Amino acid sequence: MTITMYDTLLQLPLFQGLGKNDITSILDKVKIHFSRRKAGDIVLRKGQACRDLVFLLNGSLMSETSDKDNMYLFYEEIDAPSLLEPYSLFGWRTEYASNYITSTVCDFVSIEKFYLLSELSNYEIIRLNYLNILSNRIQNLSDRLWTNMAGSVEDRIVDFILLHSIIPTGEKRLKIKMDDLAKLLSSTRIRISRALNEMQDKHWITLHRGEIRVPDFVHLKEHREARRLEQSIKSET
Amino acid sequence: MTITMYDTLLQLPLFQGLGKNDITSILDKVKIHFSRRKAGDIVLRKGQACRDLVFLLNGSLMSETSDKDNMYLFYEEIDAPSLLEPYSLFGWRTEYASNYITSTVCDFVSIEKFYLLSELSNYEIIRLNYLNILSNRIQNLSDRLWTNMAGSVEDRIVDFILLHSIIPTGEKRLKIKMDDLAKLLSSTRIRISRALNEMQDKHWITLHRGEIRVPDFVHLKEHREARRLEQSIKSET
Repeated sequence: MTITMYDTLLQLPLFQGLGKNDITSILDKVKIHFSRRKAGDIVLRKGQACRDLVFLLNGSLMSETSDKDNMYLFYEEIDAPSLLEPYSLFGWRTEYASNYITSTVCDFVSIEKFYLLSELSNYEIIRLNYLNILSNRIQNLSDRLWTNMAGSVEDRIVDFILLHSIIPTGEKRLKIKMDDLAKLLSSTRIRISRALNEMQDKHWITLHRGEIRVPDFVHLKEHREARRLEQSIKSET
Repeated sequence: MTITMYDTLLQLPLFQGLGKNDITSILDKVKIHFSRRKAGDIVLRKGQACRDLVFLLNGSLMSETSDKDNMYLFYEEIDAPSLLEPYSLFGWRTEYASNYITSTVCDFVSIEKFYLLSELSNYEIIRLNYLNILSNRIQNLSDRLWTNMAGSVEDRIVDFILLHSIIPTGEKRLKIKMDDLAKLLSSTRIRISRALNEMQDKHWITLHRGEIRVPDFVHLKEHREARRLEQSIKSET
């Protein structure tokens, strides 16, 4: 069990570049909390104080995030191994930004912030990894602010889903009323519905009661890339 | 001169909580590079490698950022003291995300990344401040992703400008063709033009050739807050 845990942790960006001896000696010095949760549990709640590094060791879960107006919910699948919201341990708002709900039985390991600062921070490589993780997220989020949503209704639906898809793999789900999606994309309910049905016919999405599911969002990314390329050729000629 | 510099640096979030003796002893150990630039100089360019902590000590400058499609340019005023793009020193893309152009004579101090890691990082408070600065930015950018742009044309223009306004004070400028703004906001050139003129009449913005200037964006923020409040009252009744 412990051998597996070390190997799993070493796969994470936070511990990249560390050897097995390093991680063993770090974990010897810190208090580690293990937990196993059954499927369907809310393990962390939006607004809950973030005081620990929480690692998902086994299993998979869904993050659930809502917009400021509570018009929609967006879900992203997260598979082990993963470190949950390392950016919520610092800054003005040290609380979780999303809910996390287990999809399968999940094993977690958590380490108090105190040990991150007193023990883990003694390793320059961990300090650097942490700065890299946070800076990557800034660069990723910032790119989204400067990416325009424009074009056909279908284009804008794709852009809207991609805008909120931060985890690079896994299923995405958007729970929203058609009327609200129409309002957000400055379109009409009928046009939105037509575009969604066409997207379902192309197997990009599946439509459920009040929910759009994207089993594999590579199709959406390809669509956006192709459109970008088209536009740049058009603007050159 | 040097006394002033220490006092100025101590006002920055990165050095918050340090004493004057600390900063003196830190700066004794690191190589500092001073420079003075005249007004109108491009001091840092988008895409240029970011290898130093660059501090603006005196003067003011404008950041210039373009969207991915090069449809528009957005400008934000930055006043001294300020640390430029601390998030571009780490992560996948260690290059500046914006251009920086001096508006007045400006004094800069820069410290190589090497010294940040070898000397500044020895102070736990600086390490913590750095993590806080990066985490704050993530929380700030992330909030924008979950803030909807919807409502009247005026509402959407306000949202669009606020979406790109990251520095909490100072003048903002948006250089864009009316046709492109109409495209981005799913509206028409005529409606956009009418809304902008009304906003100018209210002294929220001033209109120039191909450019919208926002001398004080508190008006835009108040408008958005009032609208939010209105919507939440409406949805409760």
